[in-house]
Amino acid sequence: MSYEKNIRSITPYTPGEQPKGGHIIKLNTNECPYPPSPKVEEALRSLEADSLRLYPDPEASELKEALSRTYGLPASRIFVGVGSDEVLALAFQTFFAGKDPILFPDITYSFYPVWAELYGVPYRRIPLVKEKEVPRATADSEQTGAALRDTDRHTEAFRIKAGDYRIPNGGIILPNPNAPTGVLEPLDTLEEILKANPESVVIIDEAYIDFAAESAEEVKNGVRASALPLIGKYENLLVVQTFSKSRAMAGMRIGMAFGQEKLIRYLSDVKYSFNSYTMSRAAIRLGAASLSDPVYFAETTMKLVETRERSKKRLQAMGWSFPDSRANFIFAKPPKKNAKEIFEKLKARGIYVRYFSAPETAEYLRITVGTDREMDELFKNLEEIEQNA
Amino acid sequence: MSYEKNIRSITPYTPGEQPKGGHIIKLNTNECPYPPSPKVEEALRSLEADSLRLYPDPEASELKEALSRTYGLPASRIFVGVGSDEVLALAFQTFFAGKDPILFPDITYSFYPVWAELYGVPYRRIPLVKEKEVPRATADSEQTGAALRDTDRHTEAFRIKAGDYRIPNGGIILPNPNAPTGVLEPLDTLEEILKANPESVVIIDEAYIDFAAESAEEVKNGVRASALPLIGKYENLLVVQTFSKSRAMAGMRIGMAFGQEKLIRYLSDVKYSFNSYTMSRAAIRLGAASLSDPVYFAETTMKLVETRERSKKRLQAMGWSFPDSRANFIFAKPPKKNAKEIFEKLKARGIYVRYFSAPETAEYLRITVGTDREMDELFKNLEEIEQNA
Repeated sequence: MSYEKNIRSITPYTPGEQPKGGHIIKLNTNECPYPPSPKVEEALRSLEADSLRLYPDPEASELKEALSRTYGLPASRIFVGVGSDEVLALAFQTFFAGKDPILFPDITYSFYPVWAELYGVPYRRIPLVKEKEVPRATADSEQTGAALRDTDRHTEAFRIKAGDYRIPNGGIILPNPNAPTGVLEPLDTLEEILKANPESVVIIDEAYIDFAAESAEEVKNGVRASALPLIGKYENLLVVQTFSKSRAMAGMRIGMAFGQEKLIRYLSDVKYSFNSYTMSRAAIRLGAASLSDPVYFAETTMKLVETRERSKKRLQAMGWSFPDSRANFIFAKPPKKNAKEIFEKLKARGIYVRYFSAPETAEYLRITVGTDREMDELFKNLEEIEQNA
Repeated sequence: MSYEKNIRSITPYTPGEQPKGGHIIKLNTNECPYPPSPKVEEALRSLEADSLRLYPDPEASELKEALSRTYGLPASRIFVGVGSDEVLALAFQTFFAGKDPILFPDITYSFYPVWAELYGVPYRRIPLVKEKEVPRATADSEQTGAALRDTDRHTEAFRIKAGDYRIPNGGIILPNPNAPTGVLEPLDTLEEILKANPESVVIIDEAYIDFAAESAEEVKNGVRASALPLIGKYENLLVVQTFSKSRAMAGMRIGMAFGQEKLIRYLSDVKYSFNSYTMSRAAIRLGAASLSDPVYFAETTMKLVETRERSKKRLQAMGWSFPDSRANFIFAKPPKKNAKEIFEKLKARGIYVRYFSAPETAEYLRITVGTDREMDELFKNLEEIEQNA
């Protein structure tokens, strides 16, 4: 029909499966295996249905003030939205409105090119360090056996080279840790990119940053890898985070961005031109409640990091290779390079992991870190699948 | 700074005030004065905090299936979003991507030109019937006194002329009833526009349609003014509604669109290119719960319509004039044409109504219909303000 000439036709992003019902182990969309803080439960129980008849505060001040207390930034430097996906989409629309292509890594969150298409933003993918560019094994790892060698081989694979981001561009977006690789870049690399690009807004997508510690001990000691401390120094920096992973609130859809007042104002103007009230009363209240429980948050994060480190050792022992993950998932390649087959066999057994069929990721599975019990179940099944192969 | 060359700078829509705390009467954002259905409270009480760790169903099937049962349309003809504002914004982006200007009335929801600017959609405002084009008084109303005459004078004012929408366009959007006028157009007018524009998507924004009955009796008898029955007949028709008004759930942000499968698919593709999970688990569950209570819904709507009709009589008696409202607000002009002054004086007394300063609306106040008690309080204060003037 001819009215279709006025219609925007687009190929959307495909989210991971959300299987309904049944006994399954869900390690496919990087959710937290632990429930949200008991404070969230309390807030949910005390939320008054009557209050829902009224629009929410369009500023979501209660949530921003709680974020302000948690992150030590004024509310004027904070933006909130319906998951970091909405925050990032609005940021693409706001900050990537120039004519030069924006830059992002060639393996990264697969929503970036989709947003670029949606908003008509030209883009260029910058290659990460390729596996084949990395020495097969280091002298050190030669001594520790084949399994460990495979992993060490990956220490440099999938890394970002800051020097590659010195070309003309209309903006830059980098996830840190990167997805689906799980690789964390040090702040030095980010700062080098920020310094080289004063004419571009640089977005650091920190969906997984709360898991960036190397060990539970580091979480306990408050070691932080976030680019948040750079905000005061770089007015072109926007840092995006989410409640969906470390705060176990994917179901409530809460994301946030931090930046200097000017960037936040531009982003807010676009948001208010799109939807005055993006955050429901429930999201505002429950999000704020989650932030009021830093101890629970640290404990959950510690458990997760411990299970991740334990899972790495187990995968190594089974001959899998993977870049060192500092997220709540492991991007891992089975020794027989039969990722797709394993993906399907696990699914048939009720265990969901994520498989990306693009050539550069097709040998890998992205495995969300669950509870110790869920991971044991996964490994048991992986062993059975291997034995039956 | 030079990075600003890549930034989209835009003047956003200004939502009505959401005053915090204190004893106020809030008649400024067309919220429902009654709480949501007790079924919503039940659903809220039984929502499990633990479930929030998981992403919601990206299809929001539970909500769509409940809508399907309520409206008698298959789920494939239903789209849901974060309030009708998000639904409309995504519909602008999806369906108004052509080069010809889209058309909407010159007095209408003031978000339309904002979305058009945001998505770079050219637009043209089509004048409504002007007050001065309407005879001062009809023979009939001459006999019933000045107050009633003033109202009758408005019977034709602010109406849409279907013939005006026969010019080349890239799409059409009409609110019915219109906002902020409250004027309802009969389906004949809409159908005339649909027939004349097979090459355009026509969006009917029915945020207030549930109040379109002339009397509580009509609500009881199930008289419907919605364009929903036309969906089967016109594949270029999209009907948009919301839970924010008649379902008393503005605070949860739930809106929906109905249309033939093809339109819904295009709209969904854009939605999935923007944010996979727009609806939180809470919104999906509570929205579905609301739909499971048609009796409460009808009762609330009846009370509202009764209070609106009573309020019209009272305003007439006080010498105010207004187009006949079929919404949950009255767009009314004080006899002394001092709308702005009254707006401010009411606000000082803790009563919030809405004032739009554009020339064509500057003599009017948009007064949300509250409870009988709230309206009595309003009228008492209006009388006091008049006496003190």
